[in-house]
Amino acid sequence: MTGTLYGLGVGPGDPELVTVKAVRLVRACPVLAYPAPEHGDSLARAIMAPHLPGGQVEIAIRMPLSAARFPAAEVYDAAAAAIGEHLRAGRDVAVLCLGDPLLWGSFIYLLGRLAGRSRVEIVPGVASPMAAASALHLPLAARDDALTILPATLPDARLEQALRDAESVAIIKLGRHFGRVRALLDRLGLGVDARYIEHATMDSQRVLPVRDVDPDRVPYFSLIIVRRGAAVAAGLR
Amino acid sequence: MTGTLYGLGVGPGDPELVTVKAVRLVRACPVLAYPAPEHGDSLARAIMAPHLPGGQVEIAIRMPLSAARFPAAEVYDAAAAAIGEHLRAGRDVAVLCLGDPLLWGSFIYLLGRLAGRSRVEIVPGVASPMAAASALHLPLAARDDALTILPATLPDARLEQALRDAESVAIIKLGRHFGRVRALLDRLGLGVDARYIEHATMDSQRVLPVRDVDPDRVPYFSLIIVRRGAAVAAGLR
Repeated sequence: MTGTLYGLGVGPGDPELVTVKAVRLVRACPVLAYPAPEHGDSLARAIMAPHLPGGQVEIAIRMPLSAARFPAAEVYDAAAAAIGEHLRAGRDVAVLCLGDPLLWGSFIYLLGRLAGRSRVEIVPGVASPMAAASALHLPLAARDDALTILPATLPDARLEQALRDAESVAIIKLGRHFGRVRALLDRLGLGVDARYIEHATMDSQRVLPVRDVDPDRVPYFSLIIVRRGAAVAAGLR
Repeated sequence: MTGTLYGLGVGPGDPELVTVKAVRLVRACPVLAYPAPEHGDSLARAIMAPHLPGGQVEIAIRMPLSAARFPAAEVYDAAAAAIGEHLRAGRDVAVLCLGDPLLWGSFIYLLGRLAGRSRVEIVPGVASPMAAASALHLPLAARDDALTILPATLPDARLEQALRDAESVAIIKLGRHFGRVRALLDRLGLGVDARYIEHATMDSQRVLPVRDVDPDRVPYFSLIIVRRGAAVAAGLR
């Protein structure tokens, strides 16, 4: 009888944006696992911290800054092996996932390694584009709108295509790509329709006009929402 | 001193997929409002029911089946007027929103009418494409993938464009459009990559192979996720 692997979305940052279900399940699991930087604290764990009962075994999945030295696949192999040992011993394991587990989440790589070997239950979470829209009071999509979410790592041509085709576009994980994305938006005349937010729903949340953002200080957890045309809240009748 | 207008995402259906924040706020509001059919119960209210303290004033925003007789704009005008009266009297009002308030939610139309007249706080919720992916154990997006979410009401050419451009596409609100969407997927050779689910996370949740779905019995709350190519869980290393 193996344990159950839980992938728990912990939402975008505010510990209150965790679901009732994720709180119940995380409290019942003897083992926790979560992504973490090479040194320092895990954001996913910090979000869930107010809800933890204490006394749980914890596995920090630490991702080195230099993938050359220790590639991601090896990190996930090792984490899956450690988690798999607990599951085989009959212990349930809760993997904490920023935002939603299956939306650009490292849980995907654990699922790929552990699926089929034990029961899996995945609890969806609040994703950052929705959290950002709520903070900005900006409708993401209505009626026949399409919404595209894509990472800023993509080349200009792909971002431009999405901006041309969808009424709403969320460009996530800006970081060092911000300057290039802003230049693209300016070139397309979309700068005025673009809204910038970093660390949505966290204590450190900041909303800035796109033109006022210092491209050298844009964090990884930041995004721009472009709502094409005039279909904003006030106009929706 | 006016009351605060809260837009509370209640998630996709499972009452446990409500956030801790939405539960806290709904309990503190003397007035609730929620979308409802012309006759019968409101799904948004049913999801939140286990968390309600009782004794709250309730405003059911009933949408007639025939928009010809009583257009949606009039329904929202009347609802905004009723809500606005409570806000002006200093009473906080919680509007319950299926999924996320700003993602194809009727809250958008209330926000358009009430913004600027009182304090507004919006609490994002778990959206149905993420809930569906969790139920299906299907990664929605990883690495440089793009995700497009769009309603089945859109014409074939627009759906085809999205299916061609994005690695993951969620086609929502299938209902009577299912047959047309399935024919399009078959024509594009994407039937095999498509996953169908209805009423995700509700007691009535059903997962079926796309080819086995009876197009005459597809509910409004159903969706297809197409994950292009072979980038599924098992392949993600």
